[in-house]
Amino acid sequence: MKIALAQLNFHIGNFDGNFKKMKSAVAKAKKKGADIICFPELAVTGYPPRDFLEFDDFIELSNQTIAKLTQLADGIAIVVGAPTKNPVVEGKDLFNSAYFLADKKILHITHKALLPTYDIFDEYRYFEPGSSFGTVTYKGKKIALSVCEDIWNVGNENPLYTICPLDEAAKEQPDFIINISASPFSFSHPDDRLDIIRENTRRYKIPLFYVNHIGAQTEIIFAGGSIVANQDGDIFDEMPFFKEQIKVYDLDEVKASKANKVRKKEKIEMIYQALVLGLKDYFGKLGFSKAILGLSGGIDSAVVAVLAADALGADNVRCILLPSQFSSDHSVNDARVLAENLGAQYDIIPIESIYGAFMEELDIHFRGLPFGLAEENLQARIRGTLLMAFSNKFGNILLNTSNKSEAAVGYGTLYGDMNGGLSVIGDLYKTEVFDLANYINREEERIPSNILTKPPSAELRPDQKDSDSLPDYGILDTILFEYIENRKSPKAIEAMGFDPKLIARILRMVNINEFKRYQMPPVLRVSDKAFGIGRRMPIVGKYLTGS
Amino acid sequence: MKIALAQLNFHIGNFDGNFKKMKSAVAKAKKKGADIICFPELAVTGYPPRDFLEFDDFIELSNQTIAKLTQLADGIAIVVGAPTKNPVVEGKDLFNSAYFLADKKILHITHKALLPTYDIFDEYRYFEPGSSFGTVTYKGKKIALSVCEDIWNVGNENPLYTICPLDEAAKEQPDFIINISASPFSFSHPDDRLDIIRENTRRYKIPLFYVNHIGAQTEIIFAGGSIVANQDGDIFDEMPFFKEQIKVYDLDEVKASKANKVRKKEKIEMIYQALVLGLKDYFGKLGFSKAILGLSGGIDSAVVAVLAADALGADNVRCILLPSQFSSDHSVNDARVLAENLGAQYDIIPIESIYGAFMEELDIHFRGLPFGLAEENLQARIRGTLLMAFSNKFGNILLNTSNKSEAAVGYGTLYGDMNGGLSVIGDLYKTEVFDLANYINREEERIPSNILTKPPSAELRPDQKDSDSLPDYGILDTILFEYIENRKSPKAIEAMGFDPKLIARILRMVNINEFKRYQMPPVLRVSDKAFGIGRRMPIVGKYLTGS
Repeated sequence: MKIALAQLNFHIGNFDGNFKKMKSAVAKAKKKGADIICFPELAVTGYPPRDFLEFDDFIELSNQTIAKLTQLADGIAIVVGAPTKNPVVEGKDLFNSAYFLADKKILHITHKALLPTYDIFDEYRYFEPGSSFGTVTYKGKKIALSVCEDIWNVGNENPLYTICPLDEAAKEQPDFIINISASPFSFSHPDDRLDIIRENTRRYKIPLFYVNHIGAQTEIIFAGGSIVANQDGDIFDEMPFFKEQIKVYDLDEVKASKANKVRKKEKIEMIYQALVLGLKDYFGKLGFSKAILGLSGGIDSAVVAVLAADALGADNVRCILLPSQFSSDHSVNDARVLAENLGAQYDIIPIESIYGAFMEELDIHFRGLPFGLAEENLQARIRGTLLMAFSNKFGNILLNTSNKSEAAVGYGTLYGDMNGGLSVIGDLYKTEVFDLANYINREEERIPSNILTKPPSAELRPDQKDSDSLPDYGILDTILFEYIENRKSPKAIEAMGFDPKLIARILRMVNINEFKRYQMPPVLRVSDKAFGIGRRMPIVGKYLTGS
Repeated sequence: MKIALAQLNFHIGNFDGNFKKMKSAVAKAKKKGADIICFPELAVTGYPPRDFLEFDDFIELSNQTIAKLTQLADGIAIVVGAPTKNPVVEGKDLFNSAYFLADKKILHITHKALLPTYDIFDEYRYFEPGSSFGTVTYKGKKIALSVCEDIWNVGNENPLYTICPLDEAAKEQPDFIINISASPFSFSHPDDRLDIIRENTRRYKIPLFYVNHIGAQTEIIFAGGSIVANQDGDIFDEMPFFKEQIKVYDLDEVKASKANKVRKKEKIEMIYQALVLGLKDYFGKLGFSKAILGLSGGIDSAVVAVLAADALGADNVRCILLPSQFSSDHSVNDARVLAENLGAQYDIIPIESIYGAFMEELDIHFRGLPFGLAEENLQARIRGTLLMAFSNKFGNILLNTSNKSEAAVGYGTLYGDMNGGLSVIGDLYKTEVFDLANYINREEERIPSNILTKPPSAELRPDQKDSDSLPDYGILDTILFEYIENRKSPKAIEAMGFDPKLIARILRMVNINEFKRYQMPPVLRVSDKAFGIGRRMPIVGKYLTGS
């Protein structure tokens, strides 16, 4: 028996586009002699469809697509994810289902039982958990069909869930497992995935065919990396990351092989590829091609410029340099060299005269008050406004260049440098931005080395440095990581050897700045805990905000 | 037996403040001879604590507060909501629980079984559903203790759920029901609540004591309106809306009474009170007192100014008039009269010279291109920037003045008039804003009548009117309501008699503007479907966006 895995890039709500992609994949797989082709979880709708699932019309369009796919299941079986209506009145309206289509009929449907409802996932918002865990027989083989999370409670050892769907299906002694997934990328996830697949195959002693999405849907990036494992937990194949692919596997070959083909996974390299894909798909799926960004001469905007050029082509990236009276000469120069290195268009617009026009109108109101936050933020907002003027005039999407460290502590100006359609590096701590910059420069100096070596500064007042008001980024990032990713208490962080006053100050900054992050653009997610839809915090809360 | 209901305003994560409030309520209730005092769902943490629930330290602080409350349960029993740790490894880490504290001990704990996970609710993100539904006996009475949603599946007729906790508890023949709730306000909800409480008491033929939160937590507003009903479904009392109150009820009196005391509920009056409370608590709970807003001379900013003055005092509201070359004389004048009516400080800052400074810098880049969206948005962003300069300089929170109709179709400028810490009327369609303005003016002309009668205009180019690019607001709002609130398909809306082309155009505008609403401030929620955390839409989706 030959099984094809179709690791493809779908688009939420684009039923026609998704169907065409599947139709072409079915034709290819048939040509290669596949008996079954597998598409990922909710491939028909794209993942995650979010509240579109609450629109009957949206579900109807999905059903129509399933009907069309059923007609293609002729000489080949199709496994594909789509929502199904729950026929029972009680419980949620939908199931998150895997269809098994064969001989132009729906041969079998399995409903997902374990519904991830944490971090970015909201599945219990929409779906009733499945409760029957059978197998489907096709061409003499018994197949345990499962959806994503259902293989993530091996031996009931995942504390999130109380049942193990595969244990139930295993009672019918299937020949192999198919799992269709929508498993978002984070830099630590690919290894977890290999482990869980090994555990499943070793427990049930049968091969497993795992197919994942590739492609980005706004902030959520799917890496692909679909997996075929044999009955002993050997990895027969791990499909490429960040690339579409359709590949056909022979079941007997998989069972006979002892090969263990695991791809190398370097954190920063994967992050680079994920962000490039995230950018490409955000533009492509919205029907835009051109980006704009402000180049400050600092490392954050430099890294974003490179990523944008690599994702969209340097021709499609426009850089604007927006110096003020506080900008150092080297900033403008470094930014200019960077743009030239990339071959991207750049313009220089000094903001001093606009700043002067604002201050003239504000003079009567601000007179006698010292230069402060208002004047600093004003510069950032003039820049944000100029960039948006270009965006509106020429149809370029503005890229946000904030990093995770500054987003965490509120070190950024709302409606100023926090502007943008997409936050490209908002899930990278400053220290990771440096790592990424070094990765980008690994073969040649694309980012001028001066940008990497000078001390970070917002340049909003004379001789300002980030280190005037923030601790060293190594320390800051560690404390932030322990609080944000690991959710440690102040005391537990103190036990790691940090100053309790510094901890209190930093955690307070994190918590009082929820109002800013609420209005931040969507952030390309590459870690296990990104700001945005996966981290939901009260704004008016009083936890750790001091007295 | 005497039962006190404490309908109080709690603050998320403010354990000390919440404890103090409860301690004082316990003392009052004891003085009035209460045997039991009931506080709302998750009163200890404030509702909704959101992802703070994932921090062990936060749960520990909650447990400590429960320990302190237990010591107060001396001569009076205390019913109060707080999270509890799930002792079993499998399943979510927490339960959403009702504690019954008596004789300085935890006498009983009931875990919520029905976990709302829709709209603004994310309870299954955090909580394992409870599965035992017993009663607690105190002073010879058997009490069915329940949490919020657990009374919302009477006779298993709510399609969302498959079990009915109260049916189980009823088997032990309790004397009455206590329900502790966190039931957010929407203008249609208070009537639903009365109905469900009547249904419960009629089914089980015992009285029900229902206590709700009052107060706002960022966008979510709790109205109070706690209810006592007898065994026949007669409403013995409905506590006030939008006001804290502690009231003691005698069980025998409740049972003997045939009174049916239901408060009148006028949609617009309730909305007015909800928004005033929402404003007051947003400022109060963040520790701010002063607001700022731009007054355009239009109805939206006029209504927001009145609400702010009523919530914070006119002394705490600063209005800025920001006319451009396209502003009509009457706009400035109407805005001025309004500010004077309110007794609020106002300043006039013309934006022409700043606009000129921008256009001078942009001239070389925009030369030869016609005046368009970029120039319109530039005006809005100059205004937004000026307002934020005041906000930063003087510590006033900027109020957003967008309405739901314009937020829906993207008729607003990101980083311009979409700025603000809080969207005050973002859950009111334009036609409802008019209704609210008329309500405000019911006794005297606080808002100059000219503002109510002139045709709406953004005044961003010569002689612009909203009606140039949008249909009549009566038509627009109906189509939006059917799509957003009722989630109807284009065809179903067409069947109501609207032009299919118009419908397609409007729904397309709604869907392609998700990127704008993603960065919108939190919106005070008064309807069943507000923009913000209760409506979660893909940005890169292609549903109804046209080709």
